[in-house]
Amino acid sequence: MSAGPAALTCYRTTVRPEWVDYNGHMNDAAFAGVFSEATDALLEWLGLGADSRAAHGYTAFTLETHIRYLAQAYEGQSLLVDVRLVDHDAKRLHVLMTLREASEGTGLATGEVMLMGIDTMTGRAAPFPDTIAARVGELYREHGYDEWPADAGRAIGIRRG
Amino acid sequence: MSAGPAALTCYRTTVRPEWVDYNGHMNDAAFAGVFSEATDALLEWLGLGADSRAAHGYTAFTLETHIRYLAQAYEGQSLLVDVRLVDHDAKRLHVLMTLREASEGTGLATGEVMLMGIDTMTGRAAPFPDTIAARVGELYREHGYDEWPADAGRAIGIRRG
Repeated sequence: MSAGPAALTCYRTTVRPEWVDYNGHMNDAAFAGVFSEATDALLEWLGLGADSRAAHGYTAFTLETHIRYLAQAYEGQSLLVDVRLVDHDAKRLHVLMTLREASEGTGLATGEVMLMGIDTMTGRAAPFPDTIAARVGELYREHGYDEWPADAGRAIGIRRG
Repeated sequence: MSAGPAALTCYRTTVRPEWVDYNGHMNDAAFAGVFSEATDALLEWLGLGADSRAAHGYTAFTLETHIRYLAQAYEGQSLLVDVRLVDHDAKRLHVLMTLREASEGTGLATGEVMLMGIDTMTGRAAPFPDTIAARVGELYREHGYDEWPADAGRAIGIRRG
């Protein structure tokens, strides 16, 4: 959970009343909503906003999402999401986000996603357009890891002693 | 993705217009919403509906969620979620759900969750009340696996040859 190399803070929001469930805390699916919005903000940062998607005939689909809930979030709390690019190839982005309480920076959840670049004409996976690939490379050099982060690539399971 | 031993179909829904994103398909976070609702349906089946939560002073929190998107879903499609209990201990449930298109049964996504039983007075993890534990045992015997299911316990990562 250390901040590690400078992360890109790509999204800020506040816990809305309708996100709170019968347990009195932010619902698990609401975390997924915030991570999805943060992913869109990252894609826009990489040059894949609405105009660019149309111009390139290119978009990104989510292949997988893994959320680890670390602490509860409550109505009215300010949240931020920071993001780092863990890995990539010509078509895929492996992204690790941390959702934090904004004032203290306490980690509330990690959100790991694998994204696939898609040619919107064919509906099939396709390499990133050159301008996007350049931004991806830039982000990876700036925010990549020397070591594999402990919060990524984990499997769900009950560990027994 | 085989159905394996008889799974419990715990939830049915239809893709709402507001679940569709700029890619023209059901948004990744909307899948998380459906899996969250299906988890609540499972908990109710296990005896942890609203009345029982109040009576037992007991609820469940989601510790982790891992969704693998297998195919796109579109506005108006009928969906069902089937669920199997992969593993459990005295406080935890490791659940594997499959979201399917209802008429053909095509798998659209797998949703794996780890749930932790919580004493609502202390806010801390606590063993399942006896009546819930009995239902958990029953479900595990009926829907458990002889072998570890290929769709559970997977990590996100780019595999290179």
